Amino acid sequence: MKKISLELGSGGKSMRDFIARTIVPAFKNPMLAELLDASHLPGRIAFTTDSYVVDPIFFPGGDIGKLAVNGTVNDLVVSGAVPQYLSLGLILEEGLEWNALEKILRSLKAAASRARVEIVAGDTKVVKQGQGDKIYINTSGIGKVIAKPRPKLIRPGDKLILTGTLGEHSLAILTARGDFGLEARVQSDCAPLTFLLPFWKNGLLWMRDITRGGLATILSELTEQIPYPLLIEEDEIPLSKAVQAASELLGIDPLYLACEGRAVLVVPGEKTHDVLARIKKNPLGRKAAIIGQVEGKIGRPGELLLRTSAGGLRLLEPLSSELLPRIC
Amino acid sequence: MKKISLELGSGGKSMRDFIARTIVPAFKNPMLAELLDASHLPGRIAFTTDSYVVDPIFFPGGDIGKLAVNGTVNDLVVSGAVPQYLSLGLILEEGLEWNALEKILRSLKAAASRARVEIVAGDTKVVKQGQGDKIYINTSGIGKVIAKPRPKLIRPGDKLILTGTLGEHSLAILTARGDFGLEARVQSDCAPLTFLLPFWKNGLLWMRDITRGGLATILSELTEQIPYPLLIEEDEIPLSKAVQAASELLGIDPLYLACEGRAVLVVPGEKTHDVLARIKKNPLGRKAAIIGQVEGKIGRPGELLLRTSAGGLRLLEPLSSELLPRIC
Repeated sequence: MKKISLELGSGGKSMRDFIARTIVPAFKNPMLAELLDASHLPGRIAFTTDSYVVDPIFFPGGDIGKLAVNGTVNDLVVSGAVPQYLSLGLILEEGLEWNALEKILRSLKAAASRARVEIVAGDTKVVKQGQGDKIYINTSGIGKVIAKPRPKLIRPGDKLILTGTLGEHSLAILTARGDFGLEARVQSDCAPLTFLLPFWKNGLLWMRDITRGGLATILSELTEQIPYPLLIEEDEIPLSKAVQAASELLGIDPLYLACEGRAVLVVPGEKTHDVLARIKKNPLGRKAAIIGQVEGKIGRPGELLLRTSAGGLRLLEPLSSELLPRIC
Repeated sequence: MKKISLELGSGGKSMRDFIARTIVPAFKNPMLAELLDASHLPGRIAFTTDSYVVDPIFFPGGDIGKLAVNGTVNDLVVSGAVPQYLSLGLILEEGLEWNALEKILRSLKAAASRARVEIVAGDTKVVKQGQGDKIYINTSGIGKVIAKPRPKLIRPGDKLILTGTLGEHSLAILTARGDFGLEARVQSDCAPLTFLLPFWKNGLLWMRDITRGGLATILSELTEQIPYPLLIEEDEIPLSKAVQAASELLGIDPLYLACEGRAVLVVPGEKTHDVLARIKKNPLGRKAAIIGQVEGKIGRPGELLLRTSAGGLRLLEPLSSELLPRIC
């Protein structure tokens, strides 16, 4: 008998196929079929949902509460909406320490306040020990639509801007788990991307937060929506020393690591330097960089190409199976 | 060290206290502090969330998918809103049978179609075996506000209408679990309450769906909002033979059993018979009855009184601790 496997939760290709083949057809409607980070409803309402099952629930740079606010806030931001309201659904495992819950609630509150959203609806369920894992959180979010991503306007020469270094969130989780004996001093990048909202009024064509599947998976998905290949430059991709070292040590490609406070933007060529300069003024965008472009000469439609440090071209595939379970 | 206990998930007084003391103060805002079934946001938007952890996931008369749609739809209806959109957050346990998932997705779709809501946003997470229990579902709902419950207008002589028999959902779950060796042939009452929406334009003062905690807990909560006691008549409360028999056998009071397709309404005295007649025309309201009233002579403010079959008066307290875990 066919059973659900862990790799379906990876954010990679198998998950995408699973959702596109099994879940979406069950609810055929145009809003869900777009598979956007948030659905745009009549009345300029954006609506999104995410469940958070990160393990461990506390990690360097954050916890499941901070993550549950920022993840959903960021889904709204990249869909073209100003985040306004969140709901909060808690599934608590019997035996969770009260102190831990209170710490997470404080963290949810602080993150909501920072992202300027209000938590206006909630629900709490408790399950027996061994039927959950400390705490799972669902946040659904409502935002006000101010723009719509316009992948159809993307043209060769448009630039790809990455707002910061890759992979700190994944590495912080791995370190906190003690997996691989890692002891890197790295903080999760978990943060709200609301500072990117003004760019929707400034020519921004498309934006995605870099979560499960990493930069390579997310840009691969973009290539399915446009008739041009994308080219990114390995040497231009900002990486912290800790992520670089850990990636080499473990043989993990940082292009597939999840962040929780980084985005990749597609900006018309002529606006690139202005947008980049403004992003870099924000503390969360200090390490932003132009990492590549929409190609007119090299490659074929549907391809995501990496120009390696050595000067060669490598085709990047979307993540196909589970890399790091319960990263968010 | 203080830890989370199962009884916090009961829907009873300990849960209410927990939410009021621990969760709400963490997010002080007037919308959440009202503790309504759904929050009313600017722009006549109603917003609600619920996580469903029912065990077993298939039961006579429904499954977790049907429940996840109707539960959230009903929270919107009783808050005074027309349900419009749902989000769907799945937490799947590794090893869940594919067939079971597909059956639940079909059931979600059928329930959404029946309640005339669209599922427009979704998220899927997978956790390892032993970190969940087959499937947990969060649905958050958006509706259009058409009215607001008006408990302040409630006066002595206003009548309480119950839309159908009590407790079938709880009993169906108990039977499906095989607890207590029960073999009753009873179907869950799980259903959408959208047929009650027109009454908001017809003098309806207040309405609640009868879920965790049962009728007695829900009416106890109403007594906290009004300066009059409530009196209900044991002989007028519709009960199926199966629920009556099982309750006697197990020593459970059906007034504390959960339903998933029943509501209790407060209607001005003079409109009662008209409203009752119209509710009874709907198949889901066929067994509706006037079960009591807002009292002006007997009892004291804050009291919920039951006139027993024997003619005595009994004070009903809200459910204080866990009766049946994971009933929804």
